[in-house]
Amino acid sequence: MKKLFDEIRSELEIVEEELMKVVKAPDPLLADTATHLIKAGGKRLRPAFSLFGGKFGTFEINKVLPLAVALELIHMATLVHDDVVDSAMTRRGVLTVKAMWGNKISTHIGDYLFGQSLILLSSYAGTIIPPVLADTSVKMCEGEIYQISASYDTSQTLRNYFYRIKRKTALLIAASCQLGAVTCGAPPETHLALRRYGNHVGMAFQITDDILDMTAEQRRLGKPIGADIRQGIITLPVIYALKNSKERQALLELIVKPTKSDEEVFQAISIVKECGGLEYSSGIARHYISKAKKELDPLPDIPVKETLKTIADFISFRKF
Amino acid sequence: MKKLFDEIRSELEIVEEELMKVVKAPDPLLADTATHLIKAGGKRLRPAFSLFGGKFGTFEINKVLPLAVALELIHMATLVHDDVVDSAMTRRGVLTVKAMWGNKISTHIGDYLFGQSLILLSSYAGTIIPPVLADTSVKMCEGEIYQISASYDTSQTLRNYFYRIKRKTALLIAASCQLGAVTCGAPPETHLALRRYGNHVGMAFQITDDILDMTAEQRRLGKPIGADIRQGIITLPVIYALKNSKERQALLELIVKPTKSDEEVFQAISIVKECGGLEYSSGIARHYISKAKKELDPLPDIPVKETLKTIADFISFRKF
Repeated sequence: MKKLFDEIRSELEIVEEELMKVVKAPDPLLADTATHLIKAGGKRLRPAFSLFGGKFGTFEINKVLPLAVALELIHMATLVHDDVVDSAMTRRGVLTVKAMWGNKISTHIGDYLFGQSLILLSSYAGTIIPPVLADTSVKMCEGEIYQISASYDTSQTLRNYFYRIKRKTALLIAASCQLGAVTCGAPPETHLALRRYGNHVGMAFQITDDILDMTAEQRRLGKPIGADIRQGIITLPVIYALKNSKERQALLELIVKPTKSDEEVFQAISIVKECGGLEYSSGIARHYISKAKKELDPLPDIPVKETLKTIADFISFRKF
Repeated sequence: MKKLFDEIRSELEIVEEELMKVVKAPDPLLADTATHLIKAGGKRLRPAFSLFGGKFGTFEINKVLPLAVALELIHMATLVHDDVVDSAMTRRGVLTVKAMWGNKISTHIGDYLFGQSLILLSSYAGTIIPPVLADTSVKMCEGEIYQISASYDTSQTLRNYFYRIKRKTALLIAASCQLGAVTCGAPPETHLALRRYGNHVGMAFQITDDILDMTAEQRRLGKPIGADIRQGIITLPVIYALKNSKERQALLELIVKPTKSDEEVFQAISIVKECGGLEYSSGIARHYISKAKKELDPLPDIPVKETLKTIADFISFRKF
């Protein structure tokens, strides 16, 4: 993916520097924890999308920068709060804040990062940026809470799943693409198309994540395989298998177990794989990617447009 | 305190209705949890201060309402996140969200309430309200994290303590008083004086809280006595006693114990009481109250001015 960001390489470095500035807090515990989080890295996908979006307007880094940094802070805040929640011990292959410092700190650090994003977003007062992100942050919580309500619920439908991943993942990516364009003055037909592109890419991204949870090597993904099944989070491949597998009854019994052995997790994954649950889910992801790319067609033919198409393709084929 | 709110009774009822509307979410788990939180009540001190502040301008309920509701949501979000953190099982005498639904939900519900406050605050785009509250929310996190860094640290000074409680408590009350006035167009000299009033009142409020943690009956306070000492949170009476008590070495040894029996907690409280730690702290609280009231002197002589003075007095004498 790194190469795909070549056009915005220098801008992403500026984002990185700004992120480091934000976490230079007076309290050493706060500074260390936040710096650890930033240095643990990540794909910086949301800042990148906002920078690409900006290229569809009159691009100036200073116009997009506060947004790009704020988007990564919001994303990191949700990751840290997720870590509080599911007792995950590693994230991106590095010990989570929780594992290193405990629940207390994670909750407040997440709030701190989110608060810092609000300070940055103040510079966009009067534009659609603050209300769009306020709405997005509320919907992201709705998605997270809905995921908890729906866990271990084997009667959930495709519709429930799409409702959830839209909130959990797609809306913030949609906002990243759209609002980057807004900061640089792109017209509504452009930023709304970019929003739809981001939404479809985000859906494909989460579906791919849910597939990788059953296939990726722990080393690449940075977390143990089958984590969703273990926690009763029912994702697209499982919903498909619960409907279409010959062994659906066995799968159902495995899924609803509150604690599962490694063997049981692998058994559940095998059932999903055997009935073609992963291929089906890949197909849905590719469908979203194709919709995403179509949204770009009416937009001006600038170089970044091709890059966004390549990124879309990459997202459904990535292995980490 | 109820009587002191007589002048804003009907406005507070409107705030209450709006709070109920905000939590009417589609997901039943989310709606139930958030409704439970609202119904558990609370003094609605921050909305009340914002309404009083508004009276110093051209008061219209619709101008202040989004702010008043947002302030209570921000306050509730921090309470819920605090519950995640210190495993408190009751708050305001009612089971905490955590005790009823677990850590997962508490984290996300806190984020949800905070996100809803941002949606409300969007209506003040272009005023100082969003940036002041963004800054306040970051500083509140700094205070919480600093409280963790400083826990069990018996070398902390008065200065450390005041730094912490200003962030934890005083800044949001200061913002409530100030920004209420801002929404109704009060001039800067007025809203800045109200901000200072709120800051001093907030300091006195937290000091009184810290005293009550050692004196109040569990029934009135809604949480077990000596909770701070138990968790290694070193408050003003303890800082005083660690410096002035003849038994300071015994107190120091009790405080730093990672787990303490009920007897040890009571013993620590006795040492604090015997050396006059509570009287000293009350004196400091009264000093802040007197400063708070002085800030009001130059303001227009509207009836609410007297009420704010009475509230200030009440805050340092309250028993819950």
